[in-house]
Amino acid sequence: MKVLAIDLGGTKMAAAVFGREGDVLHERTDALDGRTGGAVGAMIASAVREMRDDVQAVGIAVPGISRQQAGTVWAPNIPGWEDYPLLREAQEAAGDIPVYIESDRSCYILGETWKGNAAGCRDAIFLAVGTGIGAGILTDGRLLHGAADIGGAIGWMALERPYRDGFTSCGCFESRASGEGIARTAAAMAAANHYDGPLKNTLPTAAEVFEAYAAQDRIAVSVIRQAVELWGMATANLVSLFNPEKIIFGGGVFGPAVTFLPDIAQEAARWAQPISMRQVRLEASALGNRAGLYGAAFLAFFHQSGKPYVQ
Amino acid sequence: MKVLAIDLGGTKMAAAVFGREGDVLHERTDALDGRTGGAVGAMIASAVREMRDDVQAVGIAVPGISRQQAGTVWAPNIPGWEDYPLLREAQEAAGDIPVYIESDRSCYILGETWKGNAAGCRDAIFLAVGTGIGAGILTDGRLLHGAADIGGAIGWMALERPYRDGFTSCGCFESRASGEGIARTAAAMAAANHYDGPLKNTLPTAAEVFEAYAAQDRIAVSVIRQAVELWGMATANLVSLFNPEKIIFGGGVFGPAVTFLPDIAQEAARWAQPISMRQVRLEASALGNRAGLYGAAFLAFFHQSGKPYVQ
Repeated sequence: MKVLAIDLGGTKMAAAVFGREGDVLHERTDALDGRTGGAVGAMIASAVREMRDDVQAVGIAVPGISRQQAGTVWAPNIPGWEDYPLLREAQEAAGDIPVYIESDRSCYILGETWKGNAAGCRDAIFLAVGTGIGAGILTDGRLLHGAADIGGAIGWMALERPYRDGFTSCGCFESRASGEGIARTAAAMAAANHYDGPLKNTLPTAAEVFEAYAAQDRIAVSVIRQAVELWGMATANLVSLFNPEKIIFGGGVFGPAVTFLPDIAQEAARWAQPISMRQVRLEASALGNRAGLYGAAFLAFFHQSGKPYVQ
Repeated sequence: MKVLAIDLGGTKMAAAVFGREGDVLHERTDALDGRTGGAVGAMIASAVREMRDDVQAVGIAVPGISRQQAGTVWAPNIPGWEDYPLLREAQEAAGDIPVYIESDRSCYILGETWKGNAAGCRDAIFLAVGTGIGAGILTDGRLLHGAADIGGAIGWMALERPYRDGFTSCGCFESRASGEGIARTAAAMAAANHYDGPLKNTLPTAAEVFEAYAAQDRIAVSVIRQAVELWGMATANLVSLFNPEKIIFGGGVFGPAVTFLPDIAQEAARWAQPISMRQVRLEASALGNRAGLYGAAFLAFFHQSGKPYVQ
């Protein structure tokens, strides 16, 4: 059996035919090149038509929310995809072959559960920290969707009082500890602190803040320490609520922040339910930016309505 | 069809025979009277033997954790129940009739889902605030157990930096916003604040703090306002992570704190994922201290291994 996996990002689409053991038989990547709305849908439909021979199912990871009942997708970085009918369009292109669509964060944990660092786990979470923050959550072998498929919105986690205006647009956790949150916090601190280092007078990238941290820049040290504390608190809250076997850290920030996993574990251990904390393992993503593609493949192989992905 | 439901508390055991529509056919309550360890197990087994005629299943709610695979129970308020083999003992007493055991917090949400304010919901959470704090969580019609059946330990939720020593024994959220947390916080503030009101020189009960709040006592107002903020933040975190249809507030504190539900909703709305927040409804428990008993009955009626409770 073979499946077609498609991982749609904000700027490109990866498509690959997978064999049952996770072997990639062939693969292509296409830039979105500024496409929006229906043009992105047409691009996916075209890839499905060209690659559907010999495959028995199609799995698609989307950068946003997949509304399971309606078959529509909300993707904030693709203009015109507030409620885009991707399932119908992809299903028409696929013909008789079934098509399954899930959010990128759900696919990340599926990928790691299939061929990554959460292999075989029934209770595992992927904490994706990039420009924003989201969590893909597997409980008892099943994806957590929530009533309207927007569960896992962990960027909104409340982690410190009092409430501040900066939390309004993206949430408390994300405003401090996402890639963009780290960059903006560093810029604000650099502007306010008689500071003459490399982060002065600029909105740095998160990567530049990590570089400055490596050079012991005081603003970078302060911002990253705060992020580690918040990652630890958020990890603790996932541990206490979900009692997972593994939490996998990925996204562009993990990446460089993987080096802080021991510190995050130490911070989490102060806050979390102690028995759950002793049982959980915190690990970096094994699949990196391939987690969504592998997850889309796993989705296609093992999607059985109502059944657990991991038996 | 009829079932036997047993709700074991820290000081008493309630047992009732339920009909399919939630009608209670007969019922008894027995005080534990200082029983510990095997004597509590014998009391349950005896109730099962005496009430098993005409029933087709037995459901038991326990004040702690039910380890599903081992069939053992951890109940912190029953000495000797660190890993008590309750399933074997109750099953021996029940004979051919199947016995199912769940934590009290899981039974609370099952009860409200069956015959309370979350009736028919597939994604719903019971936030139980009494001496401690726990959450019973239903996602897509299934109970969230976690890898070792200790999910829902929301009393440990990290909600404010920096970490303080008072969080070590029971968690950040519980140390401030449980019944005991409210009482202890009030006592500490009363001792430290040139204060001469009703909360002076005593460890009050939570009920006494609510009474003092009603009389606009300044310490009580400060402590309760803090608790409302923390309940709101915790609610927001449940909303963002689980995208539930309902959150049900119960336990001894809700109770008097039910009057603050609009304030809790307002506070949660500042923090939570905004679409999920608009969809959720926050309600008081309809079943009150009967939620565990009804949940144990629902467990007995509808337990089907691996199937959702709510279809």
